[in-house]
Amino acid sequence: MLIRLGYDIRFDIQAPVAMAALLTVHPSRRPYLREPDRLTVEPGVRVEEYRDMFGNIATRFIAPAGPLRLFNSTLIEDSGQPDPVSPWAREVPVGELPPETLRYLMSSRFCEVDLLSPIAVELFGDAPRGWARVAAICAWVNSKVTFSYVQARSTRTALDVFTERVGVCRDFQHLAIAFCRAMNIPARYTAGYLGDIGVPPTGSPMDFSAWFEAYLEDRWWTFDARHNTPRIGRVLLATGLDATDVAITTSFGAAKLTHFEVVTDEIV
Amino acid sequence: MLIRLGYDIRFDIQAPVAMAALLTVHPSRRPYLREPDRLTVEPGVRVEEYRDMFGNIATRFIAPAGPLRLFNSTLIEDSGQPDPVSPWAREVPVGELPPETLRYLMSSRFCEVDLLSPIAVELFGDAPRGWARVAAICAWVNSKVTFSYVQARSTRTALDVFTERVGVCRDFQHLAIAFCRAMNIPARYTAGYLGDIGVPPTGSPMDFSAWFEAYLEDRWWTFDARHNTPRIGRVLLATGLDATDVAITTSFGAAKLTHFEVVTDEIV
Amino acid sequence: MLIRLGYDIRFDIQAPVAMAALLTVHPSRRPYLREPDRLTVEPGVRVEEYRDMFGNIATRFIAPAGPLRLFNSTLIEDSGQPDPVSPWAREVPVGELPPETLRYLMSSRFCEVDLLSPIAVELFGDAPRGWARVAAICAWVNSKVTFSYVQARSTRTALDVFTERVGVCRDFQHLAIAFCRAMNIPARYTAGYLGDIGVPPTGSPMDFSAWFEAYLEDRWWTFDARHNTPRIGRVLLATGLDATDVAITTSFGAAKLTHFEVVTDEIV
Amino acid sequence: MLIRLGYDIRFDIQAPVAMAALLTVHPSRRPYLREPDRLTVEPGVRVEEYRDMFGNIATRFIAPAGPLRLFNSTLIEDSGQPDPVSPWAREVPVGELPPETLRYLMSSRFCEVDLLSPIAVELFGDAPRGWARVAAICAWVNSKVTFSYVQARSTRTALDVFTERVGVCRDFQHLAIAFCRAMNIPARYTAGYLGDIGVPPTGSPMDFSAWFEAYLEDRWWTFDARHNTPRIGRVLLATGLDATDVAITTSFGAAKLTHFEVVTDEIV
Repeated sequence: MLIRLGYDIRFDIQAPVAMAALLTVHPSRRPYLREPDRLTVEPGVRVEEYRDMFGNIATRFIAPAGPLRLFNSTLIEDSGQPDPVSPWAREVPVGELPPETLRYLMSSRFCEVDLLSPIAVELFGDAPRGWARVAAICAWVNSKVTFSYVQARSTRTALDVFTERVGVCRDFQHLAIAFCRAMNIPARYTAGYLGDIGVPPTGSPMDFSAWFEAYLEDRWWTFDARHNTPRIGRVLLATGLDATDVAITTSFGAAKLTHFEVVTDEIV
Repeated sequence: MLIRLGYDIRFDIQAPVAMAALLTVHPSRRPYLREPDRLTVEPGVRVEEYRDMFGNIATRFIAPAGPLRLFNSTLIEDSGQPDPVSPWAREVPVGELPPETLRYLMSSRFCEVDLLSPIAVELFGDAPRGWARVAAICAWVNSKVTFSYVQARSTRTALDVFTERVGVCRDFQHLAIAFCRAMNIPARYTAGYLGDIGVPPTGSPMDFSAWFEAYLEDRWWTFDARHNTPRIGRVLLATGLDATDVAITTSFGAAKLTHFEVVTDEIV
Repeated sequence: MLIRLGYDIRFDIQAPVAMAALLTVHPSRRPYLREPDRLTVEPGVRVEEYRDMFGNIATRFIAPAGPLRLFNSTLIEDSGQPDPVSPWAREVPVGELPPETLRYLMSSRFCEVDLLSPIAVELFGDAPRGWARVAAICAWVNSKVTFSYVQARSTRTALDVFTERVGVCRDFQHLAIAFCRAMNIPARYTAGYLGDIGVPPTGSPMDFSAWFEAYLEDRWWTFDARHNTPRIGRVLLATGLDATDVAITTSFGAAKLTHFEVVTDEIV
Repeated sequence: MLIRLGYDIRFDIQAPVAMAALLTVHPSRRPYLREPDRLTVEPGVRVEEYRDMFGNIATRFIAPAGPLRLFNSTLIEDSGQPDPVSPWAREVPVGELPPETLRYLMSSRFCEVDLLSPIAVELFGDAPRGWARVAAICAWVNSKVTFSYVQARSTRTALDVFTERVGVCRDFQHLAIAFCRAMNIPARYTAGYLGDIGVPPTGSPMDFSAWFEAYLEDRWWTFDARHNTPRIGRVLLATGLDATDVAITTSFGAAKLTHFEVVTDEIV
């Protein structure tokens, strides 16, 4: 399957400001690109590309005063298969986990593992270990939290989601991630393209989406506490501890968003 | 100057549990070791050493049931000089910061930059930029927060320190770090050995200590909002976003601390 | 001046549910009513009226399943004068405050005096005492917090307002109240009718409004950190420690709001 | 049974400061006093007595600079019976609750009913209604929270207790109160004398104690999530929404506690 990817994001900039962006597909997906994947900035400025500490391809540039436009259009090959499901994937004892997964057992800005641990043990301590336990966590979060764009809030943590029971996709994932970590299952936050491929169109404008990955058996697996059903056509942009590490754009000073458009379409 | 370093940390373990430790001097200090620096675990178990995502030397092992002892004694050469002070070190514009410092501008578990930003701007927006601004932050935190061991709490965040005005060394650093980041100055948390060298003995038992580093001009500099005065003989163990990343020992299950002893003595 | 007051509030009720309402003008304003002021409930149910612990006239009833309508229209005489301003009103030492004002120095659900005290002292400790200090508090809150209906959130506390710097009228008052109490000035939350009398129409639909009262000299005075300017035509409904005590309607179970209309018009 | 009650509380006062105290037995217990119950303040100052908004007998005075001593000794008659247990006491539907109990269904500073409601429903929604439900709440809190004097913290809320699982007697009651209110059962905080009568001596110095009352059937009943077993010899001092309203002493400015002694002994 071929998927057309793209975005057109515009800001109004009052004074020159440094910006960073995670708008390039993740290194793991680069081999599948069928067209170049390059962030274009208008007006033209020098765009510096670097790997961040999580292995994502990040960019940085100075946005001059005036209108700013970030856009791109590229084409990627996809398996066309839904997220893999592997009900017998085992939990790995902490002593045997690859060392690079250990940090994903600890707390981060939006995932207070320390505060949610007793709760996680009460809710999921009796769930079968491994895949079924992560599935139980996703099902719980999905059934207890109500999706609400208008109640989105950039400071909402996993504990806030647990008490407020409302949120957008990132909030669902933050709570599920915190619960997984509390059960000693490494979990990391991911963002990427996720269109309406294989599902009825939602009618709402496309956006980037957040999901998460849990480490079971011998690899990271895709989970999504928001949709809680395997989906087709996810294209990974970046991973990190939580949304703090995976901001699509970050401006280190004022920048007013004026336009936001994302494309993720199957090419038939 | 030669400094004798060491520790003797004991636990009572009910059931086998995976543990991780950051008990080896930081790679940047390894060349100055005059004796081997190796964590000894009793009873003898396989100890795996690895680099974590922040470049620290970490170890992991399975603690068997029964008494557990982690100990070490080593010798290191030190300049004997107090922390360098460089009042003219400049703030680096975000657009010119080395990319690997950018993550240290963002929030982390114990440093809610998002919540403390307006406060930081109000308190320090008029301070001279660069070294003087970080010094102003340290002076403010040092004068407003009261040290209290008995009120230590592992879940206290920078915002909690700001409202409660009480804490141990890690709390002082968390608040200062959050303020620096809010002012677009990269700041990271550090832990290490810090004895009473060059200062009157405190009389309290030695412990590891926390301080922090801020990036100015072209390098990371040592700051310490707890003591707020240059000190002699810091030996770095590990750095990270905040105390979450720099736990001396972490047990992934129950482990009861029974003994804790740290040595940091100048050898005359 | 005569002011026409009224409301028409509708709910959809799935299962019978107990409701409480504060929809009757405050006893202090009753003598000025020129028409009866009585909450009408449709369908007709028994409405019980009682004084709550703050002296407000409250009502309670059982809402049956189906559509529910609460409405009223009444007429009140008003001085037509703006909120009194008394720049020389003194702060009363705590030892001389009327005992019934003392509770308004302490914390409540949305006003964490304990957490905000050091901050208040830093911000307002040097302000002239008395009226000028409350005015300084209102000016600070008014200038630092941005009004935003879309970011309204029923769980936002004064500390949240202080960090998030955004809110609706109740949020402005909660932060100002917490600051006043921290400075040992009794402050209480009030809700009532506030139309566009004497000011340019806002264009947005009328709503009830929140303001607050501070105790100075020998009485409670009206302050409003949201508008921060004397207004004409406030008609008090209820007072309490904070918004918890002064909910216009409370349902002890599910009730879906379907229509909300408030009238506060000068009769010319 | 006769119980000797008393206290000797001392402060060091730097500058004159207003203080309030709730150190007189509750009006409901006054008829049982066998000796006068009067707070003595040394040095002698005018002590003003008043009823607070919850019906407690409160006192206020100005403490002069220097040493301050509050003391008292009195004798009270007690039934000698343990707290009544009434397993068939019914939950009263909100529509039928006495109006003065309704405020005790809402949030207060330390009891965030709004944040804990979904959690309460998940934990206790299936418990039998009435006495058994309150008992289930007390049993849950008692078994999940660990008592710890050294981890006491005056800012800990019910939600903090729920996540931290540690606290002193007030913390146990705050969480239980929040859960009761979330289930539409009025609950209020109480403080008073509670000695070791009928139980083995704890060995720790006497203190005042906190418990709570829940409204069932036709009255308020004593519950105690800390001890979770009927006790003999409670003597009520004051009730309120939570610990904010029931502070034994409050100083409106600095006052250093230097001595604290409470007596609650059965006279044989």
